[in-house]
Amino acid sequence: MTVTTDGMHPDVSELRLAKVLAALGDEGRLTTVQALARLGESDCTRLQADAGLTMSRSTFSHHQKVLREAGILRARVQGSRRFLTLRRDDLNARFPGLLDAILASPASR
Amino acid sequence: MTVTTDGMHPDVSELRLAKVLAALGDEGRLTTVQALARLGESDCTRLQADAGLTMSRSTFSHHQKVLREAGILRARVQGSRRFLTLRRDDLNARFPGLLDAILASPASR
Repeated sequence: MTVTTDGMHPDVSELRLAKVLAALGDEGRLTTVQALARLGESDCTRLQADAGLTMSRSTFSHHQKVLREAGILRARVQGSRRFLTLRRDDLNARFPGLLDAILASPASR
Repeated sequence: MTVTTDGMHPDVSELRLAKVLAALGDEGRLTTVQALARLGESDCTRLQADAGLTMSRSTFSHHQKVLREAGILRARVQGSRRFLTLRRDDLNARFPGLLDAILASPASR
């Protein structure tokens, strides 16, 4: 069974630039977003491994929450698995060019 | 006498994406940057008035420091006045398209 976690995701009209930038203003969250952009929808356990994020599960969970609340990613629970997707179209509609500029710069810069 | 405040400004090669985004992830700092982009080099007292930033002087000072340390603006002291400029060319060189995308979105979004 797929459960979409609506009510947990701001509508595109509610996305705030300062909140999006603050959410992306962290190396771990930037790396997460860049990995999601590369991989497409991802199981969050696999994403953490593929992105080489060596932080604890609880830290990674916290980062997901910050990114979700800012409207940057969408979470979907299926059975015991949790899938994440980048809200690329919503971000592009609201802040044209922003995501592309961020994805073009390595997080390590 | 003009005193440039070098040593207080990171070199373009030292600018970090996460730090730049974190610095911009605040409504007051975003408004400051958008006003500087519009006005060009500005006396900081006048900038605060022109940008309609009703925060205290010490909060505005703190915001300037965060923006300066992230490499987003340059401060120059002349007598008792302090002038600020946006490091537009440095930001464009290091993170192409980022500043334009941010300036194109009102801070209030």
